[in-house]
Amino acid sequence: MKSVHFLLACVLLALASSLASAYDPNPLQDFCVAINNTETGIFVNGKLCKDPTLATVDDFTYRRFNIPGDTNNQLGRNATRLSVDTFPGVNTLGIILARIDYEPGGVNPPHFHPRASEILHVQDGTLYVGFADSNYTLFSTILYPGDLFAIPLGMVHFQVNIGKTDAVAFASFGSQDPGLVNVANAVFGTNPPIKPEPLARAFMLDVNVVKDLQEKFLSSDLAKKHVAACSTY
Amino acid sequence: MKSVHFLLACVLLALASSLASAYDPNPLQDFCVAINNTETGIFVNGKLCKDPTLATVDDFTYRRFNIPGDTNNQLGRNATRLSVDTFPGVNTLGIILARIDYEPGGVNPPHFHPRASEILHVQDGTLYVGFADSNYTLFSTILYPGDLFAIPLGMVHFQVNIGKTDAVAFASFGSQDPGLVNVANAVFGTNPPIKPEPLARAFMLDVNVVKDLQEKFLSSDLAKKHVAACSTY
Amino acid sequence: MKSVHFLLACVLLALASSLASAYDPNPLQDFCVAINNTETGIFVNGKLCKDPTLATVDDFTYRRFNIPGDTNNQLGRNATRLSVDTFPGVNTLGIILARIDYEPGGVNPPHFHPRASEILHVQDGTLYVGFADSNYTLFSTILYPGDLFAIPLGMVHFQVNIGKTDAVAFASFGSQDPGLVNVANAVFGTNPPIKPEPLARAFMLDVNVVKDLQEKFLSSDLAKKHVAACSTY
Amino acid sequence: MKSVHFLLACVLLALASSLASAYDPNPLQDFCVAINNTETGIFVNGKLCKDPTLATVDDFTYRRFNIPGDTNNQLGRNATRLSVDTFPGVNTLGIILARIDYEPGGVNPPHFHPRASEILHVQDGTLYVGFADSNYTLFSTILYPGDLFAIPLGMVHFQVNIGKTDAVAFASFGSQDPGLVNVANAVFGTNPPIKPEPLARAFMLDVNVVKDLQEKFLSSDLAKKHVAACSTY
Amino acid sequence: MKSVHFLLACVLLALASSLASAYDPNPLQDFCVAINNTETGIFVNGKLCKDPTLATVDDFTYRRFNIPGDTNNQLGRNATRLSVDTFPGVNTLGIILARIDYEPGGVNPPHFHPRASEILHVQDGTLYVGFADSNYTLFSTILYPGDLFAIPLGMVHFQVNIGKTDAVAFASFGSQDPGLVNVANAVFGTNPPIKPEPLARAFMLDVNVVKDLQEKFLSSDLAKKHVAACSTY
Amino acid sequence: MKSVHFLLACVLLALASSLASAYDPNPLQDFCVAINNTETGIFVNGKLCKDPTLATVDDFTYRRFNIPGDTNNQLGRNATRLSVDTFPGVNTLGIILARIDYEPGGVNPPHFHPRASEILHVQDGTLYVGFADSNYTLFSTILYPGDLFAIPLGMVHFQVNIGKTDAVAFASFGSQDPGLVNVANAVFGTNPPIKPEPLARAFMLDVNVVKDLQEKFLSSDLAKKHVAACSTY
Repeated sequence: MKSVHFLLACVLLALASSLASAYDPNPLQDFCVAINNTETGIFVNGKLCKDPTLATVDDFTYRRFNIPGDTNNQLGRNATRLSVDTFPGVNTLGIILARIDYEPGGVNPPHFHPRASEILHVQDGTLYVGFADSNYTLFSTILYPGDLFAIPLGMVHFQVNIGKTDAVAFASFGSQDPGLVNVANAVFGTNPPIKPEPLARAFMLDVNVVKDLQEKFLSSDLAKKHVAACSTY
Repeated sequence: MKSVHFLLACVLLALASSLASAYDPNPLQDFCVAINNTETGIFVNGKLCKDPTLATVDDFTYRRFNIPGDTNNQLGRNATRLSVDTFPGVNTLGIILARIDYEPGGVNPPHFHPRASEILHVQDGTLYVGFADSNYTLFSTILYPGDLFAIPLGMVHFQVNIGKTDAVAFASFGSQDPGLVNVANAVFGTNPPIKPEPLARAFMLDVNVVKDLQEKFLSSDLAKKHVAACSTY
Repeated sequence: MKSVHFLLACVLLALASSLASAYDPNPLQDFCVAINNTETGIFVNGKLCKDPTLATVDDFTYRRFNIPGDTNNQLGRNATRLSVDTFPGVNTLGIILARIDYEPGGVNPPHFHPRASEILHVQDGTLYVGFADSNYTLFSTILYPGDLFAIPLGMVHFQVNIGKTDAVAFASFGSQDPGLVNVANAVFGTNPPIKPEPLARAFMLDVNVVKDLQEKFLSSDLAKKHVAACSTY
Repeated sequence: MKSVHFLLACVLLALASSLASAYDPNPLQDFCVAINNTETGIFVNGKLCKDPTLATVDDFTYRRFNIPGDTNNQLGRNATRLSVDTFPGVNTLGIILARIDYEPGGVNPPHFHPRASEILHVQDGTLYVGFADSNYTLFSTILYPGDLFAIPLGMVHFQVNIGKTDAVAFASFGSQDPGLVNVANAVFGTNPPIKPEPLARAFMLDVNVVKDLQEKFLSSDLAKKHVAACSTY
Repeated sequence: MKSVHFLLACVLLALASSLASAYDPNPLQDFCVAINNTETGIFVNGKLCKDPTLATVDDFTYRRFNIPGDTNNQLGRNATRLSVDTFPGVNTLGIILARIDYEPGGVNPPHFHPRASEILHVQDGTLYVGFADSNYTLFSTILYPGDLFAIPLGMVHFQVNIGKTDAVAFASFGSQDPGLVNVANAVFGTNPPIKPEPLARAFMLDVNVVKDLQEKFLSSDLAKKHVAACSTY
Repeated sequence: MKSVHFLLACVLLALASSLASAYDPNPLQDFCVAINNTETGIFVNGKLCKDPTLATVDDFTYRRFNIPGDTNNQLGRNATRLSVDTFPGVNTLGIILARIDYEPGGVNPPHFHPRASEILHVQDGTLYVGFADSNYTLFSTILYPGDLFAIPLGMVHFQVNIGKTDAVAFASFGSQDPGLVNVANAVFGTNPPIKPEPLARAFMLDVNVVKDLQEKFLSSDLAKKHVAACSTY
């Protein structure tokens, strides 16, 4: 029953704002400032642009990216992800930024970006970071303020604030819409849920543990985040 | 101790055969038959080619892809993944195939391909399949012989043989080296392991369950597969 | 007179369904399910997408690709070519499949795909296959069930069923719209026809032989196929 | 005051015709003949196409590129730049041409193309040509009729007619909309002008010289060209 | 016997000079002047570059493209095709030129370029030109000096000098190695030959006519051209 | 005389370290850690990679990007540009970062990046920034800490510290080697110099002013920077 409501909320939110973003082919003119697909009801691979004669410097400017996100949630982290919806001049430019805030102990859980590589730039704090390549070799280290960490396209990676103070890092992506898949959610938090038996076999967990996980993921604040995410990305 | 040996085995195997494969930029000549990087000690983005005047029809031919793989393992499935190492004429062509065999109940666990979309083509059997998009919406269905299923670039997906007989499917990828990341392994089966505490928080599991999972993944036949994988892909 | 009717039929069929399909630039969002350009009257490089919130698993599923095509025609072969019109979830994924049926002696005549490389996968039968590179070196061999053959981008290739039973093969392409040009048709079967004198000189044939060929190609069942093709690809 | 009028003229002209052109991702169908975005009010990365069933050979033909441009201007040169607006069949083909006429002493001033490499082909006359790479090494030479000169993507380059007769050259670009930035105009001739003090420091010029330059550039026939340019590219 | 000798000649010539050329991915530095793969014995997708500190302006300059080619051959035309072997600075720039000379009645026979679109620019003479799209619709016209004709990627096209004087045209390609496949040669002039029976069926010709054509193509000056081509492209 | 020495110094420095960097085609394997071309004497479009089995987490980590650059120079700014030489794990990832420090009044002069778009992120200070599109329309604004500014591919742009304190900004680029061309240097500071007469005509300056500028640019600390640049990028 909960999942039905969840689904409804998700669909309604999705209807209210476009899921789609744009990305990587070379630009075909100086710029192509994004407009919202849902205004026109026309969807393309990427985004429609506004009339270039109406572009202004505000389209190319994003203000106040120095405001910390709210980390008061189960994982103790917050990601402020920009997109061509919030920063429309970036459309067709092939880059975007995100800001990640971490409280002490905060975890940016294992995830990957299906459409971009990343460079993480630590501004404050001490982060335990790593990525696994497709041979499951872990490349991990500890980053301090001013350090950079490169994460190749599509590799699963994570960060943990192992310091005693808040941390903040900025991520640069080589795509205007890198996408974000938290692997725990993609497995245990889908809507509708994946049947638990094959998940139990795949994760070598008891089927009841899997069911319990699915319940937790759909009712936790991760799930609430999830609702928001499904309507804005 | 086990993980040290594992690491050693992995490095030795890796030294014995190249990890790298090639993929997507347009071809720059009629063909570019791959040779093994390790022969020359020279590595490029992709693969070196053999002298084109020495190419033969055998480079463009792969025989006996109709031999079933051995599904006698924990997950009850086997993936025969081709690459430019085994099918060298495919280098720079931007496509590759894989064959997946499933015993009844066999599970191709949640995974994704960082560098390609896929079309799955069921030849025999009945498969429960699905993929989750980056909003964690699950697109799932049941496939019968002759059915096709498309999986967009980088989306987490799975298949389960829910029939009473063996099943076999062929996957086509839009890259010569799509890569393969099983998400359970990328989280619980890395080498060295990720620290268990943040994983516990990310997966809402007790830290001892995580430690137990990591132990299982590194000692199971999945881990043995993993050793093989680290030396051949 | 015949060719005028042919032209009319072709234009009418073309008006009734879009010629255009989509292909290779990287996807700019998780997916972009194709809708028919002709519904909107708007044409882009590729295809417009449906509102992503309305995508369903059916968009990503194609059923019954195991039904043989009708080979009762002059060449004794039938190609079932999928496209984003018939399998809309494939739009922006950069791959597509085709199925080719051959009766004994059936010929898939010399042709090429202007926008993709191909891997041919023989399921049943015995095929004499080959491609010519741009130096006119022929790479040819005989394929048996389970064999694969790679054909580089834009190279002229053919298959002949040299066995005593029906044959079937599946082709995977690294583009969602590889295109298909039968070279005999592109030379002798165009509408309107190319002037016969330069063709005679180019093919070292008597001009009357060329005129006869043009007549045959436009009145044969190849031409009828041609009508169908002009309205569906 | 002058610059306000200039701005108004520019905006009005811009409103009357689209600024945007198209370029480089692979084609997704045989062809995609451009139509003017402003007719539909819909703008994409590149150009919308006309219904492919309505394409004619005229879309793929451009006549009378052998008519000299008028070099009676301050620089003594004229560039006739084609685009998908004037040669619509070129849309998605990834190439375009330009014609440059030079009177004796005529100067095609230092400029670059942000989205394409170039090959310059001298038909008549004697040209002093060069480009500077990003280390400011100058590659310069003298070209005679029948000579070619290659200019890598984004490198600043120039030509000067050092002969006693008119000269003409044709430029081929690897993009359908290479763009053109004259560096003097991009620095001293912008609208509105850049503040003169930092320009003086950057160019090691007195601030009054910079102000004088800005005045000259906005009132010269270069500026008038500029108005035309802002409405047609 | 003849074909064996031909094969030997072809292999020997091929051994003496590289077949491979380069093309389309974006440049990764200011320039990458090609060197001959055969000097190093190392082959890549494209070409190795010389040390950039040793690049000179001569690498970016090609002289005397205004010298007519010899049209004294069966088809009465000559194509002077540039490549990164003869114009090394063009490597990674994504463009190349060719020059085609035609005597009166000269025929540039039906052919296509597997890796580039083309713009043909007529300098002198009167040409009957056309291309067939993948629906076999012919787009044809007559070009006069100063006219341009655009040919989309991979479409079969031809030119005929229908004037009374010599003609010359320049072709610009959106790739540094567009490739060239004459369809008559790719069908009737391969080495070794394609079996004649399926060709007869595909072209609706008597098998003896096909055998005769294959004989003619391999012994004509087209075949001699062919030998040269196999060793230089 | 001075320019001869300069040239010598430049060539020597260039010989000692590779000019080339890498950039944009999709990765063909998980990663491809750059090694220095000059070690092998082999140069490709981009960079050779080290044996992937020898990659370590240090390849993917860059430390201490929080150290300010020395702004004690004529322009009062310093750019710390990363590359695959200093951050080798970034090779094939399609992104890179730079850090720009500005003293009060410091000017990052008009320049462009031939191979990437940019997002500028202000950490401290107040910057007057702008870019000119190819119609010479100026998009300019004032940025404060936390503000972002997007600069499309190949557009000329600049920043000026108009605050009373030091400023620092970080630039993200959608290429691993965006390149950097300061337009003043590309015009007045090349080596060897461009002939002054056409520059005078192009910039509407007296020829002696141009000569004086050329002298200044080659002897200033910009020129010294230039020497360093020619040996390291």
